[in-house]
Amino acid sequence: MLRTGTLTELRKSVHIKDIGDQMYQLISELYPICRSITGNGFRETLNIIRKYVPLNIHEVPTGTQVFDWTVPKEWNIQDAYIKNSKGEKIIDFRRSNLHVVSYSVPIRKKISFGELREHLFTLPEYPDWIPYRTSYYNENWGFCLSHKQYLELKDEEYEVCIDASLEEGHLTYGEYYLKGQIEDEVLISCHACHPSLCNDNLSGVALVTCLAKYLSSLSLRYSYRFIFVPGTIGSITWLSLNEAQTFKIEHGLVVACVGDSGHATYKKSRQGDAEIDIAVAHILRHSGQDYEIIDFFPYGYDERQFCSPGFNLPVGSLTRTPHGRYPEYHTSADNLDFVRPEYLADSFSKYLAVLDVLEHNKKYLNQNPKCEPQLGKRGLYRAIGGQTDSRSDQLAMLWILNLSDGDYTLLDIAERAGLEFDSVKRIVDVLLQHDLLKECPAYD
Amino acid sequence: MLRTGTLTELRKSVHIKDIGDQMYQLISELYPICRSITGNGFRETLNIIRKYVPLNIHEVPTGTQVFDWTVPKEWNIQDAYIKNSKGEKIIDFRRSNLHVVSYSVPIRKKISFGELREHLFTLPEYPDWIPYRTSYYNENWGFCLSHKQYLELKDEEYEVCIDASLEEGHLTYGEYYLKGQIEDEVLISCHACHPSLCNDNLSGVALVTCLAKYLSSLSLRYSYRFIFVPGTIGSITWLSLNEAQTFKIEHGLVVACVGDSGHATYKKSRQGDAEIDIAVAHILRHSGQDYEIIDFFPYGYDERQFCSPGFNLPVGSLTRTPHGRYPEYHTSADNLDFVRPEYLADSFSKYLAVLDVLEHNKKYLNQNPKCEPQLGKRGLYRAIGGQTDSRSDQLAMLWILNLSDGDYTLLDIAERAGLEFDSVKRIVDVLLQHDLLKECPAYD
Amino acid sequence: MLRTGTLTELRKSVHIKDIGDQMYQLISELYPICRSITGNGFRETLNIIRKYVPLNIHEVPTGTQVFDWTVPKEWNIQDAYIKNSKGEKIIDFRRSNLHVVSYSVPIRKKISFGELREHLFTLPEYPDWIPYRTSYYNENWGFCLSHKQYLELKDEEYEVCIDASLEEGHLTYGEYYLKGQIEDEVLISCHACHPSLCNDNLSGVALVTCLAKYLSSLSLRYSYRFIFVPGTIGSITWLSLNEAQTFKIEHGLVVACVGDSGHATYKKSRQGDAEIDIAVAHILRHSGQDYEIIDFFPYGYDERQFCSPGFNLPVGSLTRTPHGRYPEYHTSADNLDFVRPEYLADSFSKYLAVLDVLEHNKKYLNQNPKCEPQLGKRGLYRAIGGQTDSRSDQLAMLWILNLSDGDYTLLDIAERAGLEFDSVKRIVDVLLQHDLLKECPAYD
Repeated sequence: MLRTGTLTELRKSVHIKDIGDQMYQLISELYPICRSITGNGFRETLNIIRKYVPLNIHEVPTGTQVFDWTVPKEWNIQDAYIKNSKGEKIIDFRRSNLHVVSYSVPIRKKISFGELREHLFTLPEYPDWIPYRTSYYNENWGFCLSHKQYLELKDEEYEVCIDASLEEGHLTYGEYYLKGQIEDEVLISCHACHPSLCNDNLSGVALVTCLAKYLSSLSLRYSYRFIFVPGTIGSITWLSLNEAQTFKIEHGLVVACVGDSGHATYKKSRQGDAEIDIAVAHILRHSGQDYEIIDFFPYGYDERQFCSPGFNLPVGSLTRTPHGRYPEYHTSADNLDFVRPEYLADSFSKYLAVLDVLEHNKKYLNQNPKCEPQLGKRGLYRAIGGQTDSRSDQLAMLWILNLSDGDYTLLDIAERAGLEFDSVKRIVDVLLQHDLLKECPAYD
Repeated sequence: MLRTGTLTELRKSVHIKDIGDQMYQLISELYPICRSITGNGFRETLNIIRKYVPLNIHEVPTGTQVFDWTVPKEWNIQDAYIKNSKGEKIIDFRRSNLHVVSYSVPIRKKISFGELREHLFTLPEYPDWIPYRTSYYNENWGFCLSHKQYLELKDEEYEVCIDASLEEGHLTYGEYYLKGQIEDEVLISCHACHPSLCNDNLSGVALVTCLAKYLSSLSLRYSYRFIFVPGTIGSITWLSLNEAQTFKIEHGLVVACVGDSGHATYKKSRQGDAEIDIAVAHILRHSGQDYEIIDFFPYGYDERQFCSPGFNLPVGSLTRTPHGRYPEYHTSADNLDFVRPEYLADSFSKYLAVLDVLEHNKKYLNQNPKCEPQLGKRGLYRAIGGQTDSRSDQLAMLWILNLSDGDYTLLDIAERAGLEFDSVKRIVDVLLQHDLLKECPAYD
Repeated sequence: MLRTGTLTELRKSVHIKDIGDQMYQLISELYPICRSITGNGFRETLNIIRKYVPLNIHEVPTGTQVFDWTVPKEWNIQDAYIKNSKGEKIIDFRRSNLHVVSYSVPIRKKISFGELREHLFTLPEYPDWIPYRTSYYNENWGFCLSHKQYLELKDEEYEVCIDASLEEGHLTYGEYYLKGQIEDEVLISCHACHPSLCNDNLSGVALVTCLAKYLSSLSLRYSYRFIFVPGTIGSITWLSLNEAQTFKIEHGLVVACVGDSGHATYKKSRQGDAEIDIAVAHILRHSGQDYEIIDFFPYGYDERQFCSPGFNLPVGSLTRTPHGRYPEYHTSADNLDFVRPEYLADSFSKYLAVLDVLEHNKKYLNQNPKCEPQLGKRGLYRAIGGQTDSRSDQLAMLWILNLSDGDYTLLDIAERAGLEFDSVKRIVDVLLQHDLLKECPAYD
């Protein structure tokens, strides 16, 4: 396929609302699958994404050493339930895959209520919701249920069944590389290891999928790498296998929680003043919406690994309500009602806007650096002087010319002049047409 | 003439009120002249200034290439009017030179109201005022009039006459160089191309003239260069002809709008932290009056050219209400009532105070850097110790000694210690007399 | 004595209240002595301190040149009084040593009230208090008394007697050096030249004595140097005699005014961002109490000398209400009621906390810098994941690992992560035990 068109053109032409619907559609399709950090649920998820994006799927064997970690056994589950003394299924994995603690070892036995209780998890503060629990690195088993249901349980004998396997196998992840004009890369990463949870993180999976799909038709400056990994162990595995290539990563974003109604939140990279940090802050400041910017801290999603001191990559995370800050987080209430197409669409358009900044954030040289060039003789100046209204395009033109000395990128200019990047970009095109600017040859 | 006395002495001896009156007097004398960016009005203005300061007058031929610009044709005007169908002069250039759009091409013809209307400019929001309009780089003609008068015009035939010439000639500017002890220069620039407009910028012309006159009798450290140029094209021409000498400019100020009742406003140089920026901020902070400091932006007066990226000179602009921020700006209401001697005098004294800082802002070395020197044995310390009142001179002495380590200028010391520069300077003299300080030999 | 135990252990084991009582006890013992910048009162004071700490006592002869100063004559006083015409002692040195201006020359004569009045000092705003006055470098004599008593004086003949000597002798100071594992020193300095004044500065003398006593039994990283000097001339003398060794001073504190009821005040070193400045600010911020941090200024106590430009040592001053900011300052009201054991104890514990930071503020290297180490397999991670409560120790562990890249000290980490230094230190010990951290070998 011939890739033409730029991100800027895409942003103008695309119906953002349609993309929100597409993302929501994909979330709905992925929602029922029981994913974990390994296993067939993760594979099935990647296969659905492949309908949109030609992912490479990597399988890493159990036992592979990845820095301080070891790729764990593969976990697969067929069924699970709890029956009461009358033989009624009171907990049924087929009704909600959250009912089983992820990575539970197989079990099938009769058990007293006293013993069972040690393996049950509820949320007393939200009695209608089922919590989401995992036990990846500690062999155990358990069930999650609503506190309401828990309170109705009688002190009788139960039958528990978890028809699962925890065996040598593989860790699976998906990767899609989109070659641009330069080798420098933008890394877009999401975790795809959660079962029926929508905001955390099917929303991220859907956004990355759509981003990859739409960008794949464009002519791009940067190369883009999209990865769909299990949280923590997946990014560690990816970094371990790709360590020698990470120097190419110029910018990166970890995508999560992009479908809820909250405002945008940007968590800065560990560097704190990386270009991605300034670019996202710029887009949010000019969005006309509420937003929040928070400093890096070593908790959250896979930015923890990308920003570990041995890598210290310029990777931030752009979310809506972040990790752990909404009550529905890691519960059955993070469902298809909790995410909405319009919020997904809004997040998507913010990501596009950020990438559009990165794509165009270059340095230019004013070709007439001594005094202002005469804009009037090029038709770039108002005809009758002396009027008091300062025209914003006029002023933007003067700012760009004044600061295009080889020190300032366009984003720097936009920030110093208080202009929106889109305006700067538009006016740079005009100035280029008149040979008043020239791209800096050796911009590193 | 033997030049003696310092700026500090001048500030003490001069009757600031008298200088305000002198400045106002000069403005009144210059007010009726029809100036433009070239022509006899500009020459006449310089000749009047020569009564106070021995200006060099430079004539630069039409067609001279000055960076991206070309020196334009010379414009001169003898008369202009509009007559109605009864032959009555309803607009008469001799009543106000603002009536004619500056650089209007000559014209003499009968014309319908419909056609005339295309060439009329008014200010509907201020129906009694005549606007000021120019058309330097776009050959055209026009008249300016009050909106009130405009509304009374009938749909009849008019006779328009602009008895002007637009021909090969010269661009004229004035320059006065005052040699000081060192080659490093302070540049003081004003534009003198506006017709009957007082604050913008006869106030600036008057302030620069008086500054030049009073400084010319003093013994000065810096060399001073005063230039009277047409706005934009004049500073571009000056920079083009003097490019090789601009490295000498250590500090500079663009003088404009110094006669209105508003508070002082300082627009910083593009560098933003130049010595001139710190000096002016210091003087304004200690003035006991309201003031405003704004960052550089590439619009306004000739600082646009001095601060273009190819020069990036440390030139700011100290005004009262700045460029375009008062309704009278570029209208007939910027007249002899709009500027007042007391505001002119106040501006003048602020300029003197700033230059006094520059003149004395050196680095000194504490001659007893290890522990405090014993002030008492030199009579510099109170006789009976243990009293709780901290004497401010005492503390200032200790600050100056403590910070005179070769890193801090006197202005740095004043800023860090929260002292007024004048106090620091006075106490430095005492410390020098006692050999407790010595001027830093190699202060660049 | 075998020195074992660390400052951290001392802080846990010591009964802070007891130390407050010990300090108050020492103040009470020292209170009656008439100290001055030289003489037997100062010697007697050091001899009492020697009961707690094996001070070296230095005697520097009168006339010794110390930088710009000269060690003065030694002053000693036996008695002094004023008798009225009836021969009644109305002022008696034995009732309060503040009655005599320190360094008064000997005198014995009959004198008119008119002449006497020239030599009397009072505090009209605090009519019950006796002021404290000195005349070290200007030979004179005088008496201080309450303003109330002054108003009762009659216009009659008086007999004044000051049985003092001002002769060649010595300036005396005490010094205690405590060798640690490294040569780098912490300097703890107080002035001990004031007569019956408690907060300024017997409180400082008592705090430094107790600090020296308790630290002397510990195993310490830094070497500590405690000096008891007369104000100004004493620190100048010490610096002059020890100039070649001052490069070893890594941190320093001037101790004064630590017994009053006011909140803690820290005056930063001249450097302003020295480790001691950050350490004290950290302790005060986490103290849960009000506090104030002020920038260096060249007045106050002996930090003036340590921070003179030729030394510029990282020496701050941690006080309660500082120098000159309480009305009792330098009056008879700065007495045994003005300082309280509980405030002395609180000050002491703050000094210990600051020194504990300095002792442990090192850099460490994360031994698994690429991605996070797997805390779970070391039992350092909660067993069941997915819970929403972020445990603070967990997060602290991740912060320390993330920032231990060789650039950040533990104090830097505590500051950036918003953690208390004590928590950081505790968790570093756990991480060291698991070989997850290693001390940076070449931390300068």
